[in-house]
Amino acid sequence: MVEPAGPVDPADWSCPVPVGHREQVVLGHGGGGRLSAELLADVFLPALGNPLLGQLADSTVVAVGGERLAMSTDSFVVQPLFFPGGDIGSLAVHGTVNDLACSGAVPLHLTAAFVIEEGTAIEVLRRIAASMGEAARAAGVAIVAGDTKVVQRGQGDGVFITTAGVGRVRDGADVRPERAAAGDAVLLSGSIGRHGVAVMSVRDGLQFGSPVTSDSAPVHGLVAALFDAGVDVHVLRDPTRGGVAASLNEIATAANVGIVIGETEVPVDAAVRSACTLMGLDPLHVANEGRLLVFVAEADAERALAALRATAGGEGAVAIGTVVADHAGMVVGNTAIGGTRIIDMPLGELLPRIC
Amino acid sequence: MVEPAGPVDPADWSCPVPVGHREQVVLGHGGGGRLSAELLADVFLPALGNPLLGQLADSTVVAVGGERLAMSTDSFVVQPLFFPGGDIGSLAVHGTVNDLACSGAVPLHLTAAFVIEEGTAIEVLRRIAASMGEAARAAGVAIVAGDTKVVQRGQGDGVFITTAGVGRVRDGADVRPERAAAGDAVLLSGSIGRHGVAVMSVRDGLQFGSPVTSDSAPVHGLVAALFDAGVDVHVLRDPTRGGVAASLNEIATAANVGIVIGETEVPVDAAVRSACTLMGLDPLHVANEGRLLVFVAEADAERALAALRATAGGEGAVAIGTVVADHAGMVVGNTAIGGTRIIDMPLGELLPRIC
Repeated sequence: MVEPAGPVDPADWSCPVPVGHREQVVLGHGGGGRLSAELLADVFLPALGNPLLGQLADSTVVAVGGERLAMSTDSFVVQPLFFPGGDIGSLAVHGTVNDLACSGAVPLHLTAAFVIEEGTAIEVLRRIAASMGEAARAAGVAIVAGDTKVVQRGQGDGVFITTAGVGRVRDGADVRPERAAAGDAVLLSGSIGRHGVAVMSVRDGLQFGSPVTSDSAPVHGLVAALFDAGVDVHVLRDPTRGGVAASLNEIATAANVGIVIGETEVPVDAAVRSACTLMGLDPLHVANEGRLLVFVAEADAERALAALRATAGGEGAVAIGTVVADHAGMVVGNTAIGGTRIIDMPLGELLPRIC
Repeated sequence: MVEPAGPVDPADWSCPVPVGHREQVVLGHGGGGRLSAELLADVFLPALGNPLLGQLADSTVVAVGGERLAMSTDSFVVQPLFFPGGDIGSLAVHGTVNDLACSGAVPLHLTAAFVIEEGTAIEVLRRIAASMGEAARAAGVAIVAGDTKVVQRGQGDGVFITTAGVGRVRDGADVRPERAAAGDAVLLSGSIGRHGVAVMSVRDGLQFGSPVTSDSAPVHGLVAALFDAGVDVHVLRDPTRGGVAASLNEIATAANVGIVIGETEVPVDAAVRSACTLMGLDPLHVANEGRLLVFVAEADAERALAALRATAGGEGAVAIGTVVADHAGMVVGNTAIGGTRIIDMPLGELLPRIC
């Protein structure tokens, strides 16, 4: 049972979010926010629990013989299947590659399982497969095993893809949320909110001035650059469902530390910002699929930023905050008008099926 | 492109099976038969192909550092979620455990990803999770990472589960379909067809005299018994979708050998046989979820049978046939009335969503 991180935020009152302890699954249970955490804590952990699953990281490090392996899985149900800047195929590769990379591992091998709705055009599958193959080659991973199932019309929706993967954890690497420590710098590899807004824009037929493309991309190159620069990386996270806000809250809770970010330091592209304003969304809650949050000791921060900025996909890397010993488990933002606010875990689902 | 293994079998004429080269996905593409193989060969292999995926085994052996790992994945979309002898949760564990075991590996770690339809009762998830946990503990594996996604009502169907897994291949083991060689004995761990008939019986509300329960079970203990007995195991396969017929045809094709089985040697429980007669099904085409096909040199056959029979789940193990140099790529059955017939790969789908 995950408790709210602080006092109730009036911003929560603005839309009819689902409440906890329901007897049926609601869309919010898939949103990566508090309801997702509740489902995990109430239903899955008691039944499946073991110390490794209990870590609740995006990927888990296991020992097999003499090797430390990272393992991860994600299902992708994004709608529509094709969106500006990507599609479900490349997204399914990036998602698992990124989860493995965020354990400090070199991603190696992926599996891919498809649940296909009867009537789906073979040509659609062909495009998705081509995109997956391209994304896998670009990320240096091989898809080594797979499965396809077909369900009747109306019992699925086009294509769902589940990828799982294995990576080899770098020698000496110790990357996990619990390592966030007071004094750490919080770095972000680039502007936020592009994936969520790109998917929304095609789904709702909205136009937000300039078109927004998803940031869907592998982040393993950024992670490699940090290790190659000799940085002692404490925590890595790709802020997907629930956005930067959810990732920071999970890390603050896991490490029992506070996090303070300067909201004006967080880069948000103009088109994303205006889309979020229009829809009443906080960009900190919007999903990213190619961004990286990095926690390092303050002394390593400049070197880490330089390494990120010198690497494709990290050109816009910035420091956005610091870890503090105060207000453990809570994330606080310094706002543009000089105040502070609690940056809470999103409760449910901003937008169903964003990934 | 998989060619028919032999001349057209008039038995194929008896129902309106889908034909190949369609422009849309049909249910038969998920059946584990020729249409599935065609989808793989036409769509997925060209895009995702690499030598490992091209092996087309149920699981793939990869090298990571100094270790040989088996990796496998399967999606489970069985309907109904609960059936006599099991449920989607235990099935999802057994399916991946069995695929790993069939590479000669000791199954170690699983991931589990859930795609849940909005409105599904939390209590249903709780029962499924409990069953998965129990199955995992019984099979000696840990579920170390997971994911949940929620889709809107009518865009899924209850719960789909995708498991993936990693196992450590036993030292010296070399288990793969290409090792089937003329002279090998073909062993089967028990009676066939129970899983398929059990699922059909609850779905269609049919009654077949005595109730049939699924054989859903892990086979890793049977595999361990073979290795512990010092048997040089050539090929292992759990005959799931498409049944024993599909598995034998895949092995005959992969190894470019012929296989002859004595149809009267294949154990079929009376209730399964009468259900198959009623529905016009060949038990050799019906799915199993806890059976094991074993190919060993003739000299090892008695020892292997003894090891299987002494192990839980293998009490009914029998020799059902031999590998021959004749009619490469083809499986032939000696029938009860003294004739022979070609045992062909099923084309499409006997029954959608059997696993």
